[in-house]
Amino acid sequence: MPDVGARLWVVPGGHIPFPSNGPEPDFTSFDQVCVLNATDTRADVELHVFYEDTEPVGPYTIRVDARRIRHVRVNDLIDPEAVRLDRPYGCLLRSPVPVVVQFLRQDTRLPGVVALAATMAYPA
Amino acid sequence: MPDVGARLWVVPGGHIPFPSNGPEPDFTSFDQVCVLNATDTRADVELHVFYEDTEPVGPYTIRVDARRIRHVRVNDLIDPEAVRLDRPYGCLLRSPVPVVVQFLRQDTRLPGVVALAATMAYPA
Amino acid sequence: MPDVGARLWVVPGGHIPFPSNGPEPDFTSFDQVCVLNATDTRADVELHVFYEDTEPVGPYTIRVDARRIRHVRVNDLIDPEAVRLDRPYGCLLRSPVPVVVQFLRQDTRLPGVVALAATMAYPA
Amino acid sequence: MPDVGARLWVVPGGHIPFPSNGPEPDFTSFDQVCVLNATDTRADVELHVFYEDTEPVGPYTIRVDARRIRHVRVNDLIDPEAVRLDRPYGCLLRSPVPVVVQFLRQDTRLPGVVALAATMAYPA
Repeated sequence: MPDVGARLWVVPGGHIPFPSNGPEPDFTSFDQVCVLNATDTRADVELHVFYEDTEPVGPYTIRVDARRIRHVRVNDLIDPEAVRLDRPYGCLLRSPVPVVVQFLRQDTRLPGVVALAATMAYPA
Repeated sequence: MPDVGARLWVVPGGHIPFPSNGPEPDFTSFDQVCVLNATDTRADVELHVFYEDTEPVGPYTIRVDARRIRHVRVNDLIDPEAVRLDRPYGCLLRSPVPVVVQFLRQDTRLPGVVALAATMAYPA
Repeated sequence: MPDVGARLWVVPGGHIPFPSNGPEPDFTSFDQVCVLNATDTRADVELHVFYEDTEPVGPYTIRVDARRIRHVRVNDLIDPEAVRLDRPYGCLLRSPVPVVVQFLRQDTRLPGVVALAATMAYPA
Repeated sequence: MPDVGARLWVVPGGHIPFPSNGPEPDFTSFDQVCVLNATDTRADVELHVFYEDTEPVGPYTIRVDARRIRHVRVNDLIDPEAVRLDRPYGCLLRSPVPVVVQFLRQDTRLPGVVALAATMAYPA
């Protein structure tokens, strides 16, 4: 497999919707970062969370094995601290090897409704 | 933190949905620009709004402090003049330092419905 | 204003949803191309439509004046021939000056439902 | 027509929604890759699927004729093996000629609801 992607990725528009409706975890509101590592080397991706009113928090470590993908809900990031729901944020991801990063949001704040939004992250 | 991004960003497809349904401000229809400034310098981002039938209007100034994000609803831009709802527009953002810009729309024109759309802005 | 963008843009994933529900034209299902021309020169953008099973059709001409945007529903392109609803297509846009192009879909095939999808076009 | 695009494209965030509601195939939940080949040469695009917990699977071959588009639901990829529904994946596409690739998701897991998400794939 070819090495594809970049080592630095940015998502400015994070905001985990709150609350959720429907069975967990399939219908839980979430923001998600999706990482593809096509290289033959494991990537411990470091994610920093940026806020409107306080210093960045991190690193959160996301392990993506060689020739694997990893889809991580931002809701599930808890170390060094949980990312609060319903709070604007952005994030910056750094990888020791080239990877590709996509962002996805699922919004189930209204009963019986699913809204989705997706974009590739910005490669720096 | 590394300096990431570009100093010039473009969003051609603006159009604030109207009307809105549901509690404000969470369920208000909006277009939003999300800016991440990973640098150590405050960025006073200048935004110009382009229309179909009149000269561009601006600058609107969006302050994004060092190592911070800022999510601004286009609905809330009022100086030098309010961006009218339900009118096609585009925008161009200029920053003195590299930043990253994402665009997000929330459409609640129908009761009990949320539609979302997101895309990274175009870096020039 | 700076000249920003590219002269060649591609959208592979066109497919105008059919039918529509709700008042026209606000709730009509559509695919849309949104063009921003920040230059001081009028752009007559030429669009070609690609299909799965026949030769490309075009050019469709989209006039975008200097320092203006233009949002065009693909449903409304009729010369040299109408783009059929509910048929997969893609499109390629060429501009004599740099412009920026975004793609947007609104899907109202179900009563009381709006779905949106947006992405920047690919600059070549 | 100009040759536009890239020979290598990546989508990290695949996940075919399950189940579906509404008439098939229009309202079936799907992930889709949309390929535009503006060249005068047929492209047999090779797609590999990446998973969280096992080696990549492929190649799946997607034939895109000269000056044609092709929209393929990932649900329909069955050779060398079916891509399972409701399982996180990513994909990498390689083409012998430059093409452009877009990703689209339709989610009809809830009755009477359509959610859409779209993004250009990442060109490597």
